[in-house]
Amino acid sequence: MQYQSLLAELIDAFCCLPGVGKKSAQRMAYHLLDKNRQGGLTLSASLQQSMQDIGNCNRCRDYTESDECQICQNERRDETILCVVESPSDVLAIEATANFHGKFFVLLGQLSPLDGIGPNEIGMPLLASRLKEGVIAEVIVATSSTIEGEATANYIAQIAEQEMGEQIQVSRLAQGVPVGGELEYLDQSTLALSLANRKLI
Amino acid sequence: MQYQSLLAELIDAFCCLPGVGKKSAQRMAYHLLDKNRQGGLTLSASLQQSMQDIGNCNRCRDYTESDECQICQNERRDETILCVVESPSDVLAIEATANFHGKFFVLLGQLSPLDGIGPNEIGMPLLASRLKEGVIAEVIVATSSTIEGEATANYIAQIAEQEMGEQIQVSRLAQGVPVGGELEYLDQSTLALSLANRKLI
Repeated sequence: MQYQSLLAELIDAFCCLPGVGKKSAQRMAYHLLDKNRQGGLTLSASLQQSMQDIGNCNRCRDYTESDECQICQNERRDETILCVVESPSDVLAIEATANFHGKFFVLLGQLSPLDGIGPNEIGMPLLASRLKEGVIAEVIVATSSTIEGEATANYIAQIAEQEMGEQIQVSRLAQGVPVGGELEYLDQSTLALSLANRKLI
Repeated sequence: MQYQSLLAELIDAFCCLPGVGKKSAQRMAYHLLDKNRQGGLTLSASLQQSMQDIGNCNRCRDYTESDECQICQNERRDETILCVVESPSDVLAIEATANFHGKFFVLLGQLSPLDGIGPNEIGMPLLASRLKEGVIAEVIVATSSTIEGEATANYIAQIAEQEMGEQIQVSRLAQGVPVGGELEYLDQSTLALSLANRKLI
């Protein structure tokens, strides 16, 4: 086996990042060596600490380095609305809208029996016990608009009805034409759906 | 100041990489946390070691973690041809062609008196002493085709003549139409140059 230089190892290591191939990895390695070694060291320290210390929130399963995440700990957020999402990055996307002030629950996956992912794997027992606390009045199910996402949403609706009956409303994100979207480029299913669900103005 | 979570710090740290903005940084952080923590730790270790241990080769100024780089140590490469480039990434680019079997010298910059970069800053004394060893028969100057690059090339030609007179040939990379390039998209200067330097077939 040929001896690998540190630089070659670094370039290989960068290739583990999504969207980074050999060329970009080279550019990153040389950029840091040439111009920003301090930035490289900061990234190294931050990576190590994050990979080791970031776990999941005991209450909502979002990523956090504490027992409970900042959103769960924040008392100014509305405890009565719970938004259920598939992954931590969905939390970030919804937070970026600055239009949601409730709490979150992160499934870390979607129901997919063929892959061996059942209710227990996506935290359903934890969600059920959370619903039983009796504080939540509305569950917004923000899973993907795929077959698995829809199945997961239906399952959550069932759980909510079983646990709390009429006391909990379950809603789903609206579907239709995206803002700024042009009709001619929209897929047929979405267009059909937004025709069927048209709103009076 | 608001408390920064580890995750937010990691996303900020990724932004120091070239071509990585907020969105890509988020994607990278979540990808590693979700799917490849081991890869993240490997990257962290490799980054730290590289930023601390990679210095410059004593002989050619290329990046290396040893006193002399692998190319300088390789006795199967032709000592009589020296390719002078501006940066370590140029070495990589030329090595990738697999068409050069001589040795390198890396300037780590280009002559630019207005920015305070004179001959001493780009390793000219080291290059001069290398030429004086009397082994080198040809110097290929592969600096950029910019005003500073040309000035640097001329300076190197002068040094070579001063030190060794007629014993050293100095050449410059050929300029012209790139392979696969279409004439209609080529800039005027390059086209004019390749007309003037046309070759008989």
